[in-house]
Amino acid sequence: MDELKQLADALMERAKRAGLGIVTAESCTAGLMCQVLADAEGASTFFHGGFVTYTKQHKSRALGVPETLLREKGAVCADVARAMAEGALEHSKAGIAAAITGVAGPEPDEDGNPVGRVCIAVARRGFPVRDLERNYPDVGRDTIRESAVADALKAMTEALASVSAAA
Amino acid sequence: MDELKQLADALMERAKRAGLGIVTAESCTAGLMCQVLADAEGASTFFHGGFVTYTKQHKSRALGVPETLLREKGAVCADVARAMAEGALEHSKAGIAAAITGVAGPEPDEDGNPVGRVCIAVARRGFPVRDLERNYPDVGRDTIRESAVADALKAMTEALASVSAAA
Repeated sequence: MDELKQLADALMERAKRAGLGIVTAESCTAGLMCQVLADAEGASTFFHGGFVTYTKQHKSRALGVPETLLREKGAVCADVARAMAEGALEHSKAGIAAAITGVAGPEPDEDGNPVGRVCIAVARRGFPVRDLERNYPDVGRDTIRESAVADALKAMTEALASVSAAA
Repeated sequence: MDELKQLADALMERAKRAGLGIVTAESCTAGLMCQVLADAEGASTFFHGGFVTYTKQHKSRALGVPETLLREKGAVCADVARAMAEGALEHSKAGIAAAITGVAGPEPDEDGNPVGRVCIAVARRGFPVRDLERNYPDVGRDTIRESAVADALKAMTEALASVSAAA
């Protein structure tokens, strides 16, 4: 958890410099990214909050992820991660969003995705959405969740870094 | 955390029997209630998800809490907790919602609410919203958060119990 704290502090510092609020959309990590961000320095100003969308229905209802997409591709794919990140931006006033959808285990999901498969997306207003897929080893729910949150925090930090460099 | 796990399991069992999905709205607990609920047996069906609304702006944007209410009464009061719970129901297809807004510390909030003050509300479709206020001792952020989540889980379980008894 110390690594997550450091990653969150680094991200928050970058968000402060960019003057951009952060929002999250989480499925398999179920709020862990929110927990970590809320404990970072500057959270009360730059961490707006997050959407925990555990079921497909709630991904659609709270974030506007298309039901047809969820039905056809399942909940764990790049397109759903991207739609979750875009939905989080749309339903907040934050400037950057990260989404995580995956299988923390102990069982594969209903669509047959294996334990450890996780899709992450980062959306920043005015920039193309980025996504990445990870297949973590099946070493337990908590470790998979922590790895996914670490990668999402790093992806947001990188997205802000390249923005600053371009500005 | 063991107590929270037991409370979450008991609530989920009751939700299953009532056939009702659960949604949350969290401020100072920042997703802890989601974390606990996602680990309960039956979560993948009966735990829809939650809204983590850390800033006033996000309470208003994601849950529809009136800006005037937040401006006039601050974020930690029964009316805001009630509006958060009602907003969570409105933005989900769940049948019951619990909201938590309070001050986990280490500092009082910007409106002068002391560390440990927490307002909780439970909303169930077709029933009056219930709320309660707690003033926990200032024994650290984590303990205050765990106490608040425990009380919110108990309040939801009670709301489902009285519903079943009345049915």
